[in-house]
Amino acid sequence: MDPLLPEPEPLVSLIEALRRLPGVGVRSARRMAYHLLQHDPQGADMLGRALAGAVRDLKHCARCNSFSEDEVCGTCSNPKRDRSLLCIVETPADQNMIESSHGYRGLYYVLMGRVAPLEGIGPRELDFDRVIKRATDGEVQEVILATNFTAEGETTAHFLGEALGERGLRVTRLARGVPAGSELEYVDAGTIAWALMERKIT
Amino acid sequence: MDPLLPEPEPLVSLIEALRRLPGVGVRSARRMAYHLLQHDPQGADMLGRALAGAVRDLKHCARCNSFSEDEVCGTCSNPKRDRSLLCIVETPADQNMIESSHGYRGLYYVLMGRVAPLEGIGPRELDFDRVIKRATDGEVQEVILATNFTAEGETTAHFLGEALGERGLRVTRLARGVPAGSELEYVDAGTIAWALMERKIT
Repeated sequence: MDPLLPEPEPLVSLIEALRRLPGVGVRSARRMAYHLLQHDPQGADMLGRALAGAVRDLKHCARCNSFSEDEVCGTCSNPKRDRSLLCIVETPADQNMIESSHGYRGLYYVLMGRVAPLEGIGPRELDFDRVIKRATDGEVQEVILATNFTAEGETTAHFLGEALGERGLRVTRLARGVPAGSELEYVDAGTIAWALMERKIT
Repeated sequence: MDPLLPEPEPLVSLIEALRRLPGVGVRSARRMAYHLLQHDPQGADMLGRALAGAVRDLKHCARCNSFSEDEVCGTCSNPKRDRSLLCIVETPADQNMIESSHGYRGLYYVLMGRVAPLEGIGPRELDFDRVIKRATDGEVQEVILATNFTAEGETTAHFLGEALGERGLRVTRLARGVPAGSELEYVDAGTIAWALMERKIT
């Protein structure tokens, strides 16, 4: 919906800026702007400061490439983590999901993206040389590919698997199958097909 | 999902600040933060500036109460608008919707909220005295109540209708009925009931 009433310029700028957020269209952006200005000017101020602070203070961990305030992040410098395992994920959100399973105590590498030829994102853009260098530090024994099970995530895993396998590393992929707690009736056919193919003896 | 990995403080602050936006939960906030930091630092900068600018430069129009850079907004100072009609809406978004119908050339008053007793928002919080003062300027002949057709919007309309009717103004309400272009099968029963009650001779 285009506004037909003349909107004041600072409001237009704020709505435009909010639209840069992923998943926010013009209608949500307008609602957010009204909300902040009318009901939460303190929130607007907080958000402004937090943005400036994050852009200024956050960099990428020299080892895992995730966001960090320090040269090396807390996870990478934690002596309790198993340095022989390296789990490669697309985003910090994926890293958090794996961590929340409580089933992993190794280290991570965060690609901050996935191979997406249509968007011009390939091995070079994702700096696969750096991933390979990290994985071949001599301590890593096994690399777990935990990119998404989407076409792009699979492509990314394929590329990485080839490159890392060549270098004599044990490369594994998260298991595919029916999600825990789900009813088969509501699971898609592709997942069922995978689950059948990779069925295990109990 | 709570992050289990130690997140750097500037990132935590940014996620917290983004959560103040309406409709944004922790998962979306985290996705927005990653997106801005990884893929659109320029957007983060724009948003930070736009927030500061909007909070600094926007005030409320002295006549209609909507957001304005000036003492009186462009709509209220437009000599082509019919000063005998005053349409009362809850938000600037509602005002835009009415404007987009191209069916109204009068002026507006924007409540910037609605009566919501559970949230402690009553006639005083919405400054009904100011609404009444605006409507009784001597030029306004008719007040159109265009608050939402929700319980709270109806309550707001009821309060305003009483107060303005007492002062000899013609007070009207937007018509209720079946939305244009809709199939009866998909319209809720309450709307059908209203449309029946308020049926018109063709």
